[in-house]
Amino acid sequence: MPDQDRVLLGHGGGGVLTKRLVREVFLAAFDDPALEHMPDSAILEIEGGRMAFTTDAFVVRPLFFRGGDVGRLSICGTVNDLSVAGAVPKFISIAAIVEEGFPVADLKRVALSAANAAREAGVRVVTGDTKVVERGKADGLFLATAGVGFVPEGRDVAPDRVRPGDRVLVSGTMGDHGIAILAEREGMRFKTPVESDCAPVSGLVEALFASGAEVHAMRDPTRGGFAAALNELAEESGVTVEIEESAVPVGREVRGACEMLGLDPFAVANEGKVIAFVSPESAESALRAMRAHPLGANAAVVGRAVGKRERPVILRTRVGGERVLEMPLGESLPRIC
Amino acid sequence: MPDQDRVLLGHGGGGVLTKRLVREVFLAAFDDPALEHMPDSAILEIEGGRMAFTTDAFVVRPLFFRGGDVGRLSICGTVNDLSVAGAVPKFISIAAIVEEGFPVADLKRVALSAANAAREAGVRVVTGDTKVVERGKADGLFLATAGVGFVPEGRDVAPDRVRPGDRVLVSGTMGDHGIAILAEREGMRFKTPVESDCAPVSGLVEALFASGAEVHAMRDPTRGGFAAALNELAEESGVTVEIEESAVPVGREVRGACEMLGLDPFAVANEGKVIAFVSPESAESALRAMRAHPLGANAAVVGRAVGKRERPVILRTRVGGERVLEMPLGESLPRIC
Repeated sequence: MPDQDRVLLGHGGGGVLTKRLVREVFLAAFDDPALEHMPDSAILEIEGGRMAFTTDAFVVRPLFFRGGDVGRLSICGTVNDLSVAGAVPKFISIAAIVEEGFPVADLKRVALSAANAAREAGVRVVTGDTKVVERGKADGLFLATAGVGFVPEGRDVAPDRVRPGDRVLVSGTMGDHGIAILAEREGMRFKTPVESDCAPVSGLVEALFASGAEVHAMRDPTRGGFAAALNELAEESGVTVEIEESAVPVGREVRGACEMLGLDPFAVANEGKVIAFVSPESAESALRAMRAHPLGANAAVVGRAVGKRERPVILRTRVGGERVLEMPLGESLPRIC
Repeated sequence: MPDQDRVLLGHGGGGVLTKRLVREVFLAAFDDPALEHMPDSAILEIEGGRMAFTTDAFVVRPLFFRGGDVGRLSICGTVNDLSVAGAVPKFISIAAIVEEGFPVADLKRVALSAANAAREAGVRVVTGDTKVVERGKADGLFLATAGVGFVPEGRDVAPDRVRPGDRVLVSGTMGDHGIAILAEREGMRFKTPVESDCAPVSGLVEALFASGAEVHAMRDPTRGGFAAALNELAEESGVTVEIEESAVPVGREVRGACEMLGLDPFAVANEGKVIAFVSPESAESALRAMRAHPLGANAAVVGRAVGKRERPVILRTRVGGERVLEMPLGESLPRIC
């Protein structure tokens, strides 16, 4: 186990180390039932209904990349956390920490891109804050967004609704965002350039509900990717998830890059994808609804929940074997979001 | 005018430069009516009432100082923005950007301090996010909080309610937070050490409403201090504010430090104070309510709103003269919060 006295890059990876740090530091301090399972969005009873509330910090490097930038990412990340909690995203706040000397033109570009993403997602950016630190004390620009949404009456999406037999859907290819960032950083060249999938999934999620599918739980596979999202959901649901490895869509270029770099595409971040657990009877209509949406063209049924086995997530391989899909430990790709 | 192509430290000072940058970059991009006057909290109509929503980034240096630390500050700053908007603060989110190598013990200390402040303020910290950046890419720890509160029915606090004749109250001494931070940074020694006033004003504000005082508008004088807060309020209200300079409480040590350093205590940040505009008939009961609260022992009536004159804020000096209290331009004390 790594040194426990200092924060490591791995503590930011969204895996086991992140969970441990957050539990020891923040959950220990705040001790609120809303934090217990460390959901990305807290669901809060308020007068007249249920509110979802979430926050994210964005430290992605570089700030501009193929398929997006930190502004777009900051809106999508927060919108998506609200959407997969079953909420309709409504209001967003943005706090900016800017390094002295940062080009105002780049700040404008980021703000406009965030505004476009907000329009796409149907949310309003209603409040913000800007702080400046001395040259060398930050890395250009960090953003932190928070979001508020409301859960429509009768909608109940939570890990404890998952049942053995539930089908697992993903809305598209895995690993695009992480590999797009890496390609940008390392100057990698592909025949077909990999673009970040960075997009607000609010429309896709609403289409899924509109289809009448019985959605039990959702997650957006960001840091730690498909592997982290499934492990978390399985643990919280008390089921095991069996995934048909060959059914999970992964783009050809992403697969190639991962093989070359020794990365598992299932552990690489996405920023515009949804994993949904639906009742077996709903699998067909859910898949149809996803595929009919522009962001869900490659949606697939990839597995199902079964009674609890020894490990939370099992991959059934192409050749008929089984292996465990582990929760990622630390950070394979720092500053991916 | 300074170079307009790059972000300067002065853009973070909460004065004229900050306002210009935010207007040109963020308001231009997001173009939402809630942003128009750049209030610290957005007030939003939701089903069943009015919600206040606010965010702040905290880049204070050093992280621990006499009277507080970045954790306490992050809760108080956000709670206070909600309170002065007339809302009862309810839910808080915290996003942390941590530099690799930061001591976990310090992170715990910050979290516990934030938790204590949250308890004092009666708010719940319900969601969070932690990101880690490489050594040298941040300055130890930055926090960004967002807060949600609800405005009780019948309560209407906004600049456009201010009328000529309204009395201006402050809840205590001005400039303590800024000078406490500066003293820490510069190793200044005082006979009586200056402590940051960092505190949640939610209780004080509720006591003010409970007194029955007709409160028209409030502001917490943080970055840019009393001068920035009053200039903003006067501009938005369309009145001029006349302040009796000698009536504004300033601690002896703070006054001394400001004289020595060439700072105006009215432009130095506070983190646990309220400026309130109340009807003339309410001035007495408002003052009594403030003074009865532990955070308002030094509260005072310091001036009044008058019909619009050429400049928004006029100081009436000890010797009977008048001078303009200007909106601070940029940053006299960087990274104060």
